[in-house]
Amino acid sequence: MTTTVIPLGTAGALPTRDRHLPAVAVEREGASVLFDCGEGTQRRLLAAELKPSRLQAVCITHLHGDHVFGLPGLLSTLSLLDRTALLVVAGPQGVARLVGCMPGLGEGERPYPIRFVELPDAFDEAVVLEADAYRIVARPLAHRVPAVGYRFEEKPRPGHLDVERARALGVTDYRHYRAMKAGEAVTLPDGRVVPPEAVVGPPQPGGSFAYVTDTMPCDGGIALAREATLLYHEATFLHDLRELAVARGHSTAREAAEVARAAGARRLLLGHFSARYRTPDALVAEARQVFQNTEAAVELKRYDLEKVEG
Amino acid sequence: MTTTVIPLGTAGALPTRDRHLPAVAVEREGASVLFDCGEGTQRRLLAAELKPSRLQAVCITHLHGDHVFGLPGLLSTLSLLDRTALLVVAGPQGVARLVGCMPGLGEGERPYPIRFVELPDAFDEAVVLEADAYRIVARPLAHRVPAVGYRFEEKPRPGHLDVERARALGVTDYRHYRAMKAGEAVTLPDGRVVPPEAVVGPPQPGGSFAYVTDTMPCDGGIALAREATLLYHEATFLHDLRELAVARGHSTAREAAEVARAAGARRLLLGHFSARYRTPDALVAEARQVFQNTEAAVELKRYDLEKVEG
Repeated sequence: MTTTVIPLGTAGALPTRDRHLPAVAVEREGASVLFDCGEGTQRRLLAAELKPSRLQAVCITHLHGDHVFGLPGLLSTLSLLDRTALLVVAGPQGVARLVGCMPGLGEGERPYPIRFVELPDAFDEAVVLEADAYRIVARPLAHRVPAVGYRFEEKPRPGHLDVERARALGVTDYRHYRAMKAGEAVTLPDGRVVPPEAVVGPPQPGGSFAYVTDTMPCDGGIALAREATLLYHEATFLHDLRELAVARGHSTAREAAEVARAAGARRLLLGHFSARYRTPDALVAEARQVFQNTEAAVELKRYDLEKVEG
Repeated sequence: MTTTVIPLGTAGALPTRDRHLPAVAVEREGASVLFDCGEGTQRRLLAAELKPSRLQAVCITHLHGDHVFGLPGLLSTLSLLDRTALLVVAGPQGVARLVGCMPGLGEGERPYPIRFVELPDAFDEAVVLEADAYRIVARPLAHRVPAVGYRFEEKPRPGHLDVERARALGVTDYRHYRAMKAGEAVTLPDGRVVPPEAVVGPPQPGGSFAYVTDTMPCDGGIALAREATLLYHEATFLHDLRELAVARGHSTAREAAEVARAAGARRLLLGHFSARYRTPDALVAEARQVFQNTEAAVELKRYDLEKVEG
């Protein structure tokens, strides 16, 4: 039940020969969720060996082309692959219209349904997707156009069942074990009732991944990153270009690190680099002065939420 | 003045790990023209070391996503690069609407003008772009939706000037040479008039490139390919899947070769391969039984129109 974060594109608005347009995949048990869908993302899914058929949701941060122009192609490919399962597409107001006006993607033209979750211009927090094992929540960010960030949050896992202790109490049926892990008391053949807390430890907290781009440092970003196992935060510029960052609604590397520190995140991945930086080395160095556990996101590298060291 | 054809994507509707979505560039003196613009084409221009700023025109065959979903991203990038020069965008009816409904690409949102050339559903031949040294013409193809093919045609080049013969006639001024190459008679200081044909040979025919996809074999495709130096023709399927090809409005490799033979083209490049074919070897072998000078288009390889051997 490992949850893995896979950056697919770490470029800013302009792709480079080395960096693809923005997208990050989260994979869990073969199923996946996308955050942003820059042009070319469907080929990046192939490169990451993620199955488009197992895609559950696409969460778009904002309607600038570099974050969304891969969506029409991906959705068309799902049609060609004869998908019938529901897909969730979340994003700011207008994402449904953008999809619907592309040829072949209107309602009735696709073999599968889309549930659009359009977030209003002003809101506090919204649950975008509630699955058995995780949920995705959104909060507003601070960019030049309406923008939202996301947090992928595993639900707490059942505690550890102490089989020896269970046996000592007379519980030997595996169906009883399963019920107790699910939090239920069981009644034994002799009439005794064994409550789950007698043999099951406390729930294990789940991991969490925050995706915060494009934005200036803001409360929404900090709230999404609160004690996150892994925070992906944009660092478009070095801090010497802070005026430009403000004018464009972006963050500097130092500011990304300040968000990570303020939120108590455990690990920071920087991304969305301006094309002027051939390598992200200077951006990482700047951020580490504020938040040591910082790296540049590496495209197609797999970051396991379980293995993040704080 | 070499004209070079550079396939950027040879996939059919579904990209593969090895093949990108449809696009072919034609480069001449640093300027370029695109035929189709599948998702990811802007990064393919980078890979081919073509400058987006020198792009003159984008000619779209039809409005299926695999041929056009790279257009919004490319046009947005031209905005980010502060383009001010006119761009020609040609395609079937609807291409202007597709561009205009994408965020940031409406009239007044771009720093550069676009001249849309929308081709009607029924027409014979249309000139899409008339430049000094070449023209691009369009003709209708036969697909499931309105589709057009294109021909990039160099204009005849001035004939060879015989400098020795010119000197013997008393013509020694280089400005006179230039005028005579441009077809003008010159008057010498002694009053004699020398007509250009006295020293300049016949015009050299220009090269031509035909781009014919997506289509079943059809008259429009044959007309575009008439004595073409280089023909790029789709070969989505092997001929054993001809029924499927007809149902989908595509050509088989054998049919592509039959078009090349009927048109008297000099060289055939196959492309738009179905994802079911891991390599194009079988498609090429099938086509060569009908038209020997056939190859599979190789992405990023440069095909010089001058060096094509018939």
